[in-house]
Amino acid sequence: MTERRVLGLDPGLQRTGWGVITSEGSSLRHVAHGTIKSSQGSPLADRLVQLFEGLNAVLNEHAPDCAAVELTFVNKDPKGALKLGQARSICLLTPALVGLPVSEYAPNLIKKSVVGSGHATKDQIRMMVEMLLPKSNVREADAADALATAICHAHHMSSPVLEAALTR
Amino acid sequence: MTERRVLGLDPGLQRTGWGVITSEGSSLRHVAHGTIKSSQGSPLADRLVQLFEGLNAVLNEHAPDCAAVELTFVNKDPKGALKLGQARSICLLTPALVGLPVSEYAPNLIKKSVVGSGHATKDQIRMMVEMLLPKSNVREADAADALATAICHAHHMSSPVLEAALTR
Repeated sequence: MTERRVLGLDPGLQRTGWGVITSEGSSLRHVAHGTIKSSQGSPLADRLVQLFEGLNAVLNEHAPDCAAVELTFVNKDPKGALKLGQARSICLLTPALVGLPVSEYAPNLIKKSVVGSGHATKDQIRMMVEMLLPKSNVREADAADALATAICHAHHMSSPVLEAALTR
Repeated sequence: MTERRVLGLDPGLQRTGWGVITSEGSSLRHVAHGTIKSSQGSPLADRLVQLFEGLNAVLNEHAPDCAAVELTFVNKDPKGALKLGQARSICLLTPALVGLPVSEYAPNLIKKSVVGSGHATKDQIRMMVEMLLPKSNVREADAADALATAICHAHHMSSPVLEAALTR
């Protein structure tokens, strides 16, 4: 079993949560987490640069082997979808630019992998992340979602068939 | 009057049109145009990398002084808005990363600046672009839209008040 370092991302234009864990077989360990913010008053291009640079700093500091991004939930509001699409775009681009494999997971699958139910609340997710990663001490919902995404990816990686499919 | 090199962009995940013109006072000159394509079968992260790298190649080859991006029209379809948002995101990020000022223009304003009416057809835009830039010989609608966006920006730059507002 080799240890893998997984970066999980929960995209948002205003706040993008990130979390890094290591996974070796079924054993998980918390490395770090945080939130990248962009200044609401700035032009969109500058906000995207802020996200891009924040993510690059995380990639440089924590050198993950792969990235997992929470799939944007397409809600009924096209303006909201557009904003989410822009943040998600940066979350997919930045790790791919440094050659990392990037996977995407639907929110329901993330919840199911971590809490056991596809309809878990934000609080249930955070509590379960704290149980699975006892030293994480995570307070922010965005970072907890990002760690949950990383955990979900680690679970799926440990299934050889799925792993082969994901790294193809 | 100093000559300015303007990059216009018409974002799209499958095809992003680009066009470079120079503007000196009221005189416009065509430099180059083209379309950056991303492969439909590839994962989204890879497609965004293709757009990013294609745009960087254009920036390196044509060294524009500023960029203008056609504002995405938010239609009623949230899935379409999400895709457009992702491509637009790369069009805003890439020039901003190399320090260029990036402006955005609504499709209606671009049409009005180039054709004189906010409700021009794709063909009317292309014909007007060919009249304003006689050597452009542009055939693709995406590249014609990108050149129209660059022309729109050049018009607005030549108004000192607007220019000051845009470069602030």
